[in-house]
Amino acid sequence: MRAAVWYKAKDVRVEEREVPELQTNEVKVRVAWTGICGSDLHEYLHGPLTVPVDEPDPLTKQTAPLTLGHEFSAVVEETGVNVSRVKKGDRVVINPLITYGNKDPHLDIYDGFNFIGLGRDGGFADYVVLDEKHLYMLPEGLTLEEGALVEPSAVSVQALKEGNFQAGQTVGVYGAGPIGLLTVLAAKAQGASTIVVYDISEARLEKAKELGATYVVNSADQDPVEVTKELVAEGFDVTIEAAGVEATVNQAIHTTKKRGIVVIVSLISNPIKITPMDLIGSGVVITSSAAYEPDVYKKTIDLIATGKMDVKQAVTKHISLENIVTEGFEALTKDKSEVKILVELSGEK
Amino acid sequence: MRAAVWYKAKDVRVEEREVPELQTNEVKVRVAWTGICGSDLHEYLHGPLTVPVDEPDPLTKQTAPLTLGHEFSAVVEETGVNVSRVKKGDRVVINPLITYGNKDPHLDIYDGFNFIGLGRDGGFADYVVLDEKHLYMLPEGLTLEEGALVEPSAVSVQALKEGNFQAGQTVGVYGAGPIGLLTVLAAKAQGASTIVVYDISEARLEKAKELGATYVVNSADQDPVEVTKELVAEGFDVTIEAAGVEATVNQAIHTTKKRGIVVIVSLISNPIKITPMDLIGSGVVITSSAAYEPDVYKKTIDLIATGKMDVKQAVTKHISLENIVTEGFEALTKDKSEVKILVELSGEK
Repeated sequence: MRAAVWYKAKDVRVEEREVPELQTNEVKVRVAWTGICGSDLHEYLHGPLTVPVDEPDPLTKQTAPLTLGHEFSAVVEETGVNVSRVKKGDRVVINPLITYGNKDPHLDIYDGFNFIGLGRDGGFADYVVLDEKHLYMLPEGLTLEEGALVEPSAVSVQALKEGNFQAGQTVGVYGAGPIGLLTVLAAKAQGASTIVVYDISEARLEKAKELGATYVVNSADQDPVEVTKELVAEGFDVTIEAAGVEATVNQAIHTTKKRGIVVIVSLISNPIKITPMDLIGSGVVITSSAAYEPDVYKKTIDLIATGKMDVKQAVTKHISLENIVTEGFEALTKDKSEVKILVELSGEK
Repeated sequence: MRAAVWYKAKDVRVEEREVPELQTNEVKVRVAWTGICGSDLHEYLHGPLTVPVDEPDPLTKQTAPLTLGHEFSAVVEETGVNVSRVKKGDRVVINPLITYGNKDPHLDIYDGFNFIGLGRDGGFADYVVLDEKHLYMLPEGLTLEEGALVEPSAVSVQALKEGNFQAGQTVGVYGAGPIGLLTVLAAKAQGASTIVVYDISEARLEKAKELGATYVVNSADQDPVEVTKELVAEGFDVTIEAAGVEATVNQAIHTTKKRGIVVIVSLISNPIKITPMDLIGSGVVITSSAAYEPDVYKKTIDLIATGKMDVKQAVTKHISLENIVTEGFEALTKDKSEVKILVELSGEK
């Protein structure tokens, strides 16, 4: 089968690979569509970050070279003898999250986690063999293309949950990359009264407006804190930080209402400066969000299937696996108007 | 009457002042005991911080020179004609918090606040004239001396509330100053299973142990993060940061359990570095605490009156008003074994 395999930074090869042997509890799926995630791009540009290299990942036991791709939908091709939840021909969405599973879902991931497609072979391939627990049935009326967008959408739905978001509330979103934009859709779908999006790319802000942002602010031209006073006088109930720099974390704090919540979704691994007095003076709480709980994954499928989250709007391009480097990773690096690029595998609808 | 009046940093004068004229809604109280707070010390050492100097405080309309002292108990001396809640001879605790009062208590203070004794004339004086709403009756069996300890105790009770503290949980306390030590008492009174206190002063750690800390850690000798792994393997449910430096905020984050809460109580007005990935990897939430809600104030009086919080243990010295600078402010600056110094005014029991 074909597979896009990560060897090292700037070295992802589309090559022939064997389909792994099916174990009794496993399912072989024929991949339909796989989205390119920011994490894939980071692994391509300056990995390894999550990809295990020197020693096997403790959860997956695998090391690079491995096939990337964790946002994918598929059709069941073959099932191991102990598999009971799916059968050949079922259309499925993959929840790629791998955890130890020893604790309640809201604590489970903090014991450590990885993903199919980052910690082991994933969905930029014609076939994937995986445990049946990773599969969710695709509801009627939801296309396989939309199914490939469930995973990043679930990240946004979880982020809003961490912010204790309720219908009728106001939401600020820093960063109009894929997660920021899907947060706009998730907030709109769940009844946000006002959504303001901040970015420095006009193309991305344009997209945010298209997807339902009430207002967009170009932080390169205008001071987010000053502008927000005019747009949402008291500040936001929930502010999602998906831009990932010190300035946006602080802007998020300063534009959140008294006792509101800032949710950091971006993976900021360097120290940044904040001023605790800003919290004490406002009661603003800083929390974060990582991955998604199983119930949030199911809720996300439901939000998409019922038409509340029209995730197709986030797709800017469909490409073939062969062109994943040039038309995928390189395009995302250079062109800020690209949001979600889907890689066609079987291309089934 | 006598009053300890703040003129500028290092210039607090004990001098004669007129007792202000009583308005119809006001009460004149005869001060019994007044505690010296860290804020008083900061105003003495490098004020003005909260004391209004160039223009009147928007809430109190007063500017310095003004009488310090916001932790005090008193006996009612005289009441204005419209006062209904107290009468001459009543023993009272003063809630010195001044707010606009336009919102629910949990939001009210974030519109701005000040204190009797920092924003206007306070309790380092023989008499104070103030609105009756600031007075709470001292329950039978609670001494006026204990009454002077309600205010700082309420800061600790509020901090635990902000951390969503529940009986049976584990509590970490960074900083064994007065607030840290009163937090030990407040946590113990409300059923903490384990309380660990961190400081670099052996004298203060000794005091923490005396007041009920399960373990104490000298952070100058031992790495708090490493030691905590042995003491409370999963980390704390709630960690109170009352030391006020970058290192302790980060230690607090690193010793809090997955999805636990760090409550910053110390007034850190300079930027400090934190690493957001530490939050994302642990689900730890950062919140803060400022002052106290009226219900928390009442609860604190109750915790002391019922003997659950033996706050007298925090008192290390009683001094006369005349010696407030040398035996009060200067002593607290030089001697780490001092915790709560009470200034005797009428000295009634």
